[in-house]
Amino acid sequence: MIDLSLSRRSLLAGSATSAALATLPATAAPLTKQAKRQPLMIDEQGSFAVGGSVVTAEGTVDTYAQGTTGQTLHGDHAYISYQKPVNAKPLPLVMWHGIGQFSKTWETTPDGREGFQNIFLRRGHSVYLIDQPRRGRAGRTTQASPISTTPDDQRWFNTFRVGVWPNYNPGVQFARDPETLNQYFRQMVPSTGPFDLKLTADAIVKLFDKIGEGVLVTHSHSGGLGWQTAMHNRNVRGIVTFEPGSNFPFPEGELPAPVPSSSGPVEAIAAPLDAFMQLTKIPILIVYGDFIPAKPDSNPGADGWRARMIMARQWRDAVNRRGGDVTVIHLPEIGIRGNTHFPFSDLNNLEVADVMSSFLTRKKLG
Amino acid sequence: MIDLSLSRRSLLAGSATSAALATLPATAAPLTKQAKRQPLMIDEQGSFAVGGSVVTAEGTVDTYAQGTTGQTLHGDHAYISYQKPVNAKPLPLVMWHGIGQFSKTWETTPDGREGFQNIFLRRGHSVYLIDQPRRGRAGRTTQASPISTTPDDQRWFNTFRVGVWPNYNPGVQFARDPETLNQYFRQMVPSTGPFDLKLTADAIVKLFDKIGEGVLVTHSHSGGLGWQTAMHNRNVRGIVTFEPGSNFPFPEGELPAPVPSSSGPVEAIAAPLDAFMQLTKIPILIVYGDFIPAKPDSNPGADGWRARMIMARQWRDAVNRRGGDVTVIHLPEIGIRGNTHFPFSDLNNLEVADVMSSFLTRKKLG
Repeated sequence: MIDLSLSRRSLLAGSATSAALATLPATAAPLTKQAKRQPLMIDEQGSFAVGGSVVTAEGTVDTYAQGTTGQTLHGDHAYISYQKPVNAKPLPLVMWHGIGQFSKTWETTPDGREGFQNIFLRRGHSVYLIDQPRRGRAGRTTQASPISTTPDDQRWFNTFRVGVWPNYNPGVQFARDPETLNQYFRQMVPSTGPFDLKLTADAIVKLFDKIGEGVLVTHSHSGGLGWQTAMHNRNVRGIVTFEPGSNFPFPEGELPAPVPSSSGPVEAIAAPLDAFMQLTKIPILIVYGDFIPAKPDSNPGADGWRARMIMARQWRDAVNRRGGDVTVIHLPEIGIRGNTHFPFSDLNNLEVADVMSSFLTRKKLG
Repeated sequence: MIDLSLSRRSLLAGSATSAALATLPATAAPLTKQAKRQPLMIDEQGSFAVGGSVVTAEGTVDTYAQGTTGQTLHGDHAYISYQKPVNAKPLPLVMWHGIGQFSKTWETTPDGREGFQNIFLRRGHSVYLIDQPRRGRAGRTTQASPISTTPDDQRWFNTFRVGVWPNYNPGVQFARDPETLNQYFRQMVPSTGPFDLKLTADAIVKLFDKIGEGVLVTHSHSGGLGWQTAMHNRNVRGIVTFEPGSNFPFPEGELPAPVPSSSGPVEAIAAPLDAFMQLTKIPILIVYGDFIPAKPDSNPGADGWRARMIMARQWRDAVNRRGGDVTVIHLPEIGIRGNTHFPFSDLNNLEVADVMSSFLTRKKLG
């Protein structure tokens, strides 16, 4: 048995986990196993709406507010929940889900372990979780979409590269019990209104007005939303993005050709040069997982990611040519294997978190 | 200055706030003001889906899971987030929102103070927050409803008894700055599917299967859902309900007449006697706020609550006649004034929390 009383006290006092664990003998259990047993010391936690719009019906509100004349509808905001640990590092992490998802992306994993929310709280970061406009807790919308009830769980199983239904990808970092899959399918949520890139990014631009400087952590569809946000708010001091899929912005007149794939072409979008230049001023890390084919593949679920990673590398080069600091990590190339489209909740998510922590430290964002 | 070091240490060690504060001299600042400055010590926090159904499309899943044949849709579950403080009391509080709402009900108040989630965590209770099936984070549904974009903020302002638009009720415990109202209107969220009493309660029945014994804390529409849940799961050891509005269950053949109001009649529902009897076996506290007219009133927003409180008292009597332990507190009658339909987030919510804590202690649920 190892006496953990010293590190325990350090943790309770809110020191950075890594610092506290540095004092442990090398034979101690891994950092993360130990840290997980410590209480989280939360200095402040709460939630709020940010951004959004208001529509007002014509006329005057009736005495007892029956009918709709003159009434308002507040919608299209983002909903934010946050926690600040004791002695938090200066820059909060603002975590943004992908398509069909909500804050759950960063919470308890489908197999019941801690996700990036808890992992990075334990590492001393304040964590903000987004539900973007027209999704989840931010479902109040000024324009409605029909709610989809199309059975499509297996399509997502393939597109998120868990496997090719009903088979799991070999070595996939995903637990194979039925309850994990049940939880995984239930972490999706429909959009309540049409997608609007500007409207959605605007809410998070306003979030950074409110909270000040921070680091965006995006996933998949929010990758493109994150670029928009950073182009319009200098409080975004860095970006870590997992598997961005769409809406890579290039300077007007410099758009690359669409990248074909068996799930359709991946296309870039145009941005004014001065907005684009803002992306050259912050450190950016782009991470992709495993099971992305090296050559065109007839499986659209996998092949789309091949095309998106090609586009991401073209985008990295475009930003870096103008003085930017973009790194693309394809996890298998650094020996981290088996990751799906959700590396932050895969079985090896602590290893993936270490990749992110290392970037944050190296770029002085941690 | 008062030396708070002793109570501070007690709080950090996870002692009940009330116990720790009992050691303070009478001249110390109020309990809640002090406690608010202490970090929350969270032993565990996370989230999961519970209950729900699965629909399966006919046919066989296509090789690459395109189309819909053979695919499944997991929906109709509840979504639960929870926190357990260090040295938590044995019975968790399971907090359930009302109509048009989600977990936000119990979180940061519209004016930015702590809601019942944080207040009761600080008092040593584990807290589970529900998004009921087809709402908010549990929006994935097997049956769709059209998303409402009807402007109706002012109607809710009246029905929730903040005032009679555009006037605030005199002495209302609600901050009058524009941003508070903005946050208040944005804490609503549409239903993604039709309301189904049994389907909705079933998810929370399964929650109590999973977590074991606990106390339900319901609001408004979930009052009726809470009775259903408790009738079908003995792990519900007590109920505190704020302003229940509908679905009061009476034994078959013993239904009272509908109570008329200017917002329409309030009707009881029937329950099998053996299910009803379960409600006589647990302590139940029903709380109503202020601005409920004593006599029939032409303002439907307010008058509906008069009728609902009449029904609640009839229900109390029906349960207590068969040996139950139901108390109805109309807050103005015990000198607590100015409360809206959301007493737990009103400006005096710490005073309201004290009423609830006192009940929990008295009934050995705390």
